Amino acid sequence: MEHTYAVIMAGGVGSRFWPSSRAATPKQLLDLTGSGRTMIGATVGRLQPDIPPERVIVVTGRVTLEAVREAVPELPPENVLAEPQGRNTAPCIGWAALHVAHRDPDGVLAVMPSDHLVADQTGFMDAVRTAVGAAQGGALVTFGITPDRPETGFGYIEMGDEVDPGVRRAERFVEKPDLETAEQYLAAGNFAWNSGMFFFRADKILGEIGAQMPELKTGLDEIGAAIGTAEQDAVVDRVFPTLPSESVDYGIMEGASGILCVPASFGWSDLGSWAAAYDLSNKDADNNAVDADAIAVGSSGCLVRAPEEKLVALVGVDDLVVVDTGDSLLVCKRGLAQDVKKIVTELKRRGRKDLL
Amino acid sequence: MEHTYAVIMAGGVGSRFWPSSRAATPKQLLDLTGSGRTMIGATVGRLQPDIPPERVIVVTGRVTLEAVREAVPELPPENVLAEPQGRNTAPCIGWAALHVAHRDPDGVLAVMPSDHLVADQTGFMDAVRTAVGAAQGGALVTFGITPDRPETGFGYIEMGDEVDPGVRRAERFVEKPDLETAEQYLAAGNFAWNSGMFFFRADKILGEIGAQMPELKTGLDEIGAAIGTAEQDAVVDRVFPTLPSESVDYGIMEGASGILCVPASFGWSDLGSWAAAYDLSNKDADNNAVDADAIAVGSSGCLVRAPEEKLVALVGVDDLVVVDTGDSLLVCKRGLAQDVKKIVTELKRRGRKDLL
Repeated sequence: MEHTYAVIMAGGVGSRFWPSSRAATPKQLLDLTGSGRTMIGATVGRLQPDIPPERVIVVTGRVTLEAVREAVPELPPENVLAEPQGRNTAPCIGWAALHVAHRDPDGVLAVMPSDHLVADQTGFMDAVRTAVGAAQGGALVTFGITPDRPETGFGYIEMGDEVDPGVRRAERFVEKPDLETAEQYLAAGNFAWNSGMFFFRADKILGEIGAQMPELKTGLDEIGAAIGTAEQDAVVDRVFPTLPSESVDYGIMEGASGILCVPASFGWSDLGSWAAAYDLSNKDADNNAVDADAIAVGSSGCLVRAPEEKLVALVGVDDLVVVDTGDSLLVCKRGLAQDVKKIVTELKRRGRKDLL
Repeated sequence: MEHTYAVIMAGGVGSRFWPSSRAATPKQLLDLTGSGRTMIGATVGRLQPDIPPERVIVVTGRVTLEAVREAVPELPPENVLAEPQGRNTAPCIGWAALHVAHRDPDGVLAVMPSDHLVADQTGFMDAVRTAVGAAQGGALVTFGITPDRPETGFGYIEMGDEVDPGVRRAERFVEKPDLETAEQYLAAGNFAWNSGMFFFRADKILGEIGAQMPELKTGLDEIGAAIGTAEQDAVVDRVFPTLPSESVDYGIMEGASGILCVPASFGWSDLGSWAAAYDLSNKDADNNAVDADAIAVGSSGCLVRAPEEKLVALVGVDDLVVVDTGDSLLVCKRGLAQDVKKIVTELKRRGRKDLL
């Protein structure tokens, strides 16, 4: 995969992992499953040795730039790009495509979030190779994760005929369904989860941006012309905040034709909440996932995180998320972990920037 | 009540209130109901103005001596006695009786724990006056708290005939009953809770000790002879640890004759666990008793205590005790608050003196 560049999107804030996730330490900078590595570190790591650090580009925000560089020290510092302002994924990917095209006219982007999990490393890289191969032919390519439940939290891709071994047509992208629709998708068998991972040649995606988002293309052209010059940073500072804020799904993929889909099942998880972190953590005999100095009496099914100098005692409690960060403590019913964002909303309302 | 001396027993460690209660800050030094006063401070306070600080004697342990003096600064420092070693209530009361007798040959002791609650201050002092009156006549007197439930956690007193207005004979003391027996006691109407509060003349209790616990009497005589001399502290250090470790209930009250009982119902609680602290705390609209900076979403029936600089977030949890002390965190089902002592047992097993 010599022409392949990984583009890792690391601009998220991950409020569902409060109190661990904060503006300065968002989800991708945390080790949420007790693996010993940050999410972004694991994301870079699983690409090795196929896509070496020199060909891994990370796009993050200004406030997290240094922390990201520390989390993936194997990357050349200039491979970590900092957006002056988050403008959603279309400008992010377009900007990365400019850098890839500048380095390699035949460059292919393998775009992926920085904060997802993959259980089957070999299966993942096999799927990446298949997708990159299809992208080299000029197509926009996406992964289609084989669903194992009627999940209502993801968008879906309706898949059509197989056009090459392991490559199918993507007939359409659909938004997050209700439960009844999700059950129909699961039963139908030709619907897959949109994981937010995409593969395309740099010149191809820039061409699609030109066709579908001309305003974005104009701004990107200005930024692209300055790459490698002394004005590079100043132009980004001036132009990037003016780019239209739009997702690549809505702005490009939904309107493009000839998109291909690589069906894949490599144990993917977007790790969307503390409940997902619990599911993917190692458990003890009482099904507690403990990363803390803890004593549990008559308690099971709990996720526990705390500073190492703190003792956590559980008595007679089941299925809780208990996360202590020193300045904050979350005690949450595990099945209601999505509602952690309500705490974040309330903290914003109270102006508690110190805790966000 | 000019001859009356309050003797407040403050030797307990209160492990059921871990992590707030510690060896150096036992239950009586905590404000468990958010009243703004320590338990011992409230105990001294409710005696005012009838029994002034000059006639309040506190018996505590060496490790808590200074903290107790700080908690009740209105007491003359010499009124806070420190046992070199806890020997249960009989030696504690005997020692206090020596001090009372030394000050006032007609002195009457009003003995009470330092860590109980009283809701009805006026009713409490009325009962104290009645009990002191009976004690001045020479009897050993106890309170008999009118039960409102078949409680199995207390000892009971079977009451006989009324001998004076508001004063009945105490026929016998019985140990903590099983539930069936407790229900019979409640139905019978002549059984009352033993609250651990006693009233007797100093000379009378010392006489009873001589009759029923001669070994204790011998030791107390040695300590009593040194009161007011230069050897006072040295004698206590040498003799006190050799005194028999026995409760006044078992060593004296159960074997004494002519005990009187003052039936009383002044909203007494021994505040035996975090669940009792919850019951007696102010609640918000969701029935949460919060003494912390907290955000509760879809949560009810919880007791929350935390350092003021910490934010506590509850999401979808009910009937929990959440107590954060900085070095430790307890998350406990409220109905299982008695099991907190299992945590203390485990900490002892692990040798975690820093948390005990």
